[in-house]
Amino acid sequence: MMMHNLSVGVLGGSGYTGRELLGLLGGHGGVHVRFATSDSEAGQPSGARGLPLIPLAQAEPLVAGLDVLFLCLPHGEASPWVERLREEDVRIIDLTADHRPGSGRESGVVYGLPELTPDAVRSAKVVANPGCYPTGVILSLAPLARAGLLDPSRPVVVNAASGVTGAGRAPKRELLFGEVFGDYRAYGLGNGHRHLLEMRATLPELELLFVPHLLPVARGILETIVAPVAPGVGAEQVLGTWLEAYGQSPAVQVMTKGVPSLANVVNTDLLALGASDNEGLRSPAVTLVAALDNLGKGAAGQAVQNMNLMLGFEAERGIRC
Amino acid sequence: MMMHNLSVGVLGGSGYTGRELLGLLGGHGGVHVRFATSDSEAGQPSGARGLPLIPLAQAEPLVAGLDVLFLCLPHGEASPWVERLREEDVRIIDLTADHRPGSGRESGVVYGLPELTPDAVRSAKVVANPGCYPTGVILSLAPLARAGLLDPSRPVVVNAASGVTGAGRAPKRELLFGEVFGDYRAYGLGNGHRHLLEMRATLPELELLFVPHLLPVARGILETIVAPVAPGVGAEQVLGTWLEAYGQSPAVQVMTKGVPSLANVVNTDLLALGASDNEGLRSPAVTLVAALDNLGKGAAGQAVQNMNLMLGFEAERGIRC
Amino acid sequence: MMMHNLSVGVLGGSGYTGRELLGLLGGHGGVHVRFATSDSEAGQPSGARGLPLIPLAQAEPLVAGLDVLFLCLPHGEASPWVERLREEDVRIIDLTADHRPGSGRESGVVYGLPELTPDAVRSAKVVANPGCYPTGVILSLAPLARAGLLDPSRPVVVNAASGVTGAGRAPKRELLFGEVFGDYRAYGLGNGHRHLLEMRATLPELELLFVPHLLPVARGILETIVAPVAPGVGAEQVLGTWLEAYGQSPAVQVMTKGVPSLANVVNTDLLALGASDNEGLRSPAVTLVAALDNLGKGAAGQAVQNMNLMLGFEAERGIRC
Amino acid sequence: MMMHNLSVGVLGGSGYTGRELLGLLGGHGGVHVRFATSDSEAGQPSGARGLPLIPLAQAEPLVAGLDVLFLCLPHGEASPWVERLREEDVRIIDLTADHRPGSGRESGVVYGLPELTPDAVRSAKVVANPGCYPTGVILSLAPLARAGLLDPSRPVVVNAASGVTGAGRAPKRELLFGEVFGDYRAYGLGNGHRHLLEMRATLPELELLFVPHLLPVARGILETIVAPVAPGVGAEQVLGTWLEAYGQSPAVQVMTKGVPSLANVVNTDLLALGASDNEGLRSPAVTLVAALDNLGKGAAGQAVQNMNLMLGFEAERGIRC
Repeated sequence: MMMHNLSVGVLGGSGYTGRELLGLLGGHGGVHVRFATSDSEAGQPSGARGLPLIPLAQAEPLVAGLDVLFLCLPHGEASPWVERLREEDVRIIDLTADHRPGSGRESGVVYGLPELTPDAVRSAKVVANPGCYPTGVILSLAPLARAGLLDPSRPVVVNAASGVTGAGRAPKRELLFGEVFGDYRAYGLGNGHRHLLEMRATLPELELLFVPHLLPVARGILETIVAPVAPGVGAEQVLGTWLEAYGQSPAVQVMTKGVPSLANVVNTDLLALGASDNEGLRSPAVTLVAALDNLGKGAAGQAVQNMNLMLGFEAERGIRC
Repeated sequence: MMMHNLSVGVLGGSGYTGRELLGLLGGHGGVHVRFATSDSEAGQPSGARGLPLIPLAQAEPLVAGLDVLFLCLPHGEASPWVERLREEDVRIIDLTADHRPGSGRESGVVYGLPELTPDAVRSAKVVANPGCYPTGVILSLAPLARAGLLDPSRPVVVNAASGVTGAGRAPKRELLFGEVFGDYRAYGLGNGHRHLLEMRATLPELELLFVPHLLPVARGILETIVAPVAPGVGAEQVLGTWLEAYGQSPAVQVMTKGVPSLANVVNTDLLALGASDNEGLRSPAVTLVAALDNLGKGAAGQAVQNMNLMLGFEAERGIRC
Repeated sequence: MMMHNLSVGVLGGSGYTGRELLGLLGGHGGVHVRFATSDSEAGQPSGARGLPLIPLAQAEPLVAGLDVLFLCLPHGEASPWVERLREEDVRIIDLTADHRPGSGRESGVVYGLPELTPDAVRSAKVVANPGCYPTGVILSLAPLARAGLLDPSRPVVVNAASGVTGAGRAPKRELLFGEVFGDYRAYGLGNGHRHLLEMRATLPELELLFVPHLLPVARGILETIVAPVAPGVGAEQVLGTWLEAYGQSPAVQVMTKGVPSLANVVNTDLLALGASDNEGLRSPAVTLVAALDNLGKGAAGQAVQNMNLMLGFEAERGIRC
Repeated sequence: MMMHNLSVGVLGGSGYTGRELLGLLGGHGGVHVRFATSDSEAGQPSGARGLPLIPLAQAEPLVAGLDVLFLCLPHGEASPWVERLREEDVRIIDLTADHRPGSGRESGVVYGLPELTPDAVRSAKVVANPGCYPTGVILSLAPLARAGLLDPSRPVVVNAASGVTGAGRAPKRELLFGEVFGDYRAYGLGNGHRHLLEMRATLPELELLFVPHLLPVARGILETIVAPVAPGVGAEQVLGTWLEAYGQSPAVQVMTKGVPSLANVVNTDLLALGASDNEGLRSPAVTLVAALDNLGKGAAGQAVQNMNLMLGFEAERGIRC
């Protein structure tokens, strides 16, 4: 196969996302990881077996020759790289928040939700890999909105909880084990969360109210979405619509019985979806439950899905589903 | 003081609630714990120092002579005791769900929310100690509803998460450490949760939608309540109304800055309340956050508050606030 | 390849070990899982994709036709099956403690440590799959004893800690999340632990003192072994001896720098080994550290290694290393 | 009582130890907390209700007028304060490692183990509050050594595990929740650990081998000590010796049945001790188990015990036992 010689690189290989991505790329089999960078852990082994991390500065001359460059840098540091590589042949998958919808810098960039816009991803120069929370919310709601199942005149309440790796690996007091153990907290209330802007920009027809929480586990996101529905719509129609939309998608699993929990998805690249009726309400609503691993389908797994589309690999290659 | 000779007993002293209650009663100083029962752990020390647990059968002849009897039995086993002691002088605080609003057996029983109906509790023969989830929801919403801050035409979405001791100490596979560790799940969706009936019966003017979750911690409840408000109402009015209602209550703490998390309340008998605005919504809503320890204010702490009212002790005696 | 048609079955497919094994067998590619049993979860999906669990009684007629039968039953329930299948062609890998060294029933059974006695495993009719604690202890100490590095006149102190899944999936009060969360305890002190008998029977030349602990995590074992050494022996010789013994073994990883922790091995089938000197002691001792996943190398992973030997597959097939 | 006017201050009030100490002092009733410092959290509430934290510089002029000054500063920052206050009337309890045995700076300082040397503490100008690990080890072994129960010719193996707050509250990558959750590791192997020097300097007649571990819980230390004993000595003599030594000590609890676990001591100021025989060993040894809260008896609780001795309060005042 001609694909064996495709080469990729990772800027930012020692954060949680970068390490997860390197693990997936190391087992993918169709691409060669040329390098992965880390200034804080240079010289140490990377997540891809046998490959040591190198300082960012050493990676600079190697970047242009790649087929795909992954950006797992801190938020705010991706834009200069995209700018600089505009004229080069290398394609970019940006896992930072820099170019996502609502960021103000999304022009010329494809928002990479493989299940919703595969054709745009296939031909993209730069893909903005979606945020972890928005992945679950958008994939839950978009097909329902399109099918007319929702009542857009009432707000959708998104309650979400994320494991601590979602906040990154930079040392901060509030992320210490001694602070988080036994605790559980809401944060980013009001309208301030970056991910809310991303969801609203992608689903402008819906009024979204977002309540994220920090969960005392390492990995995983659970979103419990109270969705106002049109009269007569229930969980059955929701499940049917999802099955139609995602029946062929390896990374989305629709549970027709019960609802998913973190245990169903942690250490996988799956998004699991379930729905439950709320009988007897004057204002009908279905409760949707979306579960994913914030480092899997919420980051590195989705990045590999995007790479598979861009380089012509089969959809499920290298992902855990 | 004449109160030194008041005597109490506890039926069900080896469950999580019973043990917590015995710990509080042991440090109360104003009452004498005559006995605590447990068939599974008879002969072992109880939570009240120096007092061994006795079989339930041995407690039967001792019950009638008490000032207050606490029922910490499995749900369903309290009713026969209430029936049998109807003509006796002993007063009863029932920590089971048997006589709570919505149970169908609440006649002749006072629902024991010390901050809302202290006079009724003072003179009650039988007090139904509220459920853990309802305590936070009702104390959050009742003063707001009374003050006309809420819009009753739109549903209140209650997202709640509870530590595992809320499910009791009887061995069940789904409560094993190996199952819960690293997991997080929604449960009791739809209309089925017993606590939802209790909330609805107490706040009949509101449409409540309840989404409980099992949290991988031992203790604590956090409730994030999206409350539809009347036009012009915001977090400031909410906080003001709460301060007016609870300013003198030792067991309720209103946070005027930020919102509470589990760490603020675990191992205490406090309910902590906070509120946050959601700007720019077409349908105005304030996000309320209520935190309590399910074994403290959600069970044993509230039972001691009720006992204090019934026996004439000062409000904060024996509780951790 | 002729191996595609090899068929296996699993008695006891809903415990932690059985589920882990089914997951590995499902991804092995060289064997077909004919059935997996569970009386408590019959009809539910098993760990091997697409295969439902069946009641044990339904499996009885299918057993004799298999190439390999795995016994993941409760301890004590394996012996009758081994007895019954004595004359049949099917080979057995017994993951219970029934036939391990020290059990009194090991006659005619091969103790299945693939790195130490591969030839015996290859031709075995019945393999006793080692216990999780003994796997780490024996593989740590056996090559050192054989090389004469240890001082057998002084006792070896084995401190060990295991995640909670090591205690099985049957509901017991002391394994509830509410009991284990935030706790850590020693148990099985004295000489009583079954695994100590297994270690002593396998390493009779050494005096072993064993102190197991219950660790508040789901998976993983860490063993910190204070090994009395002959004069002049240090960590360097230990590492050299291990490298010689295990350099070609895919499931044993010798760390020449630092010592392993649970994070290195959880969700893998690896045993990771490290060693550290203790300078200036009058009685010289090296501290050995062994880390493994109790469900991986400590159970299901090792069972797959044994199966690979018995059926002629390559050593690393189907295991996570 | 004349004691009401005694005043104390805390340098370093926002670390885990400082906060715990402030909580105890706030409930002590016999002393007035004049101030507590924190540069990183100045202006925020301290652990002692109603007292805001002030910058260290603001505390300087207030120090000399105190009855007792507590030093909860980072290790290495206590010495200058002790130097500076040498001629002042204020007495000092130093919770850092700066002046402990083995530090090289213990001259003129009393090592503050209230159960072993109460008289020296009573009259001390400066008390070095013991480290958390040494507290359990020394109180376990000292009475046994004194009574001649141990065999000093063979090494004592101390296996210990500590919750993460033992490592302090300064942000470090290896203490992040995402790193520690689900992990368990040995650290400080060899002879390097500061606490080993402290133990050896205090128990010079014994050969100590120390293996500390980082436990994925917030609080608590469990030490499992394999102690070589003289011929004929067993757990019974050990328990008897401890009861004699500590029968009147409110902060030490000897368990005559079973051994303690973290759950027995977390959130208390107790040290709980238990012992277990190891029958049939050629080299007789008793396994001792010591459990304490690293922030309680291992730090703040012991500091309050020392203060009680220095200021003439009853032994159990202000401690949780």
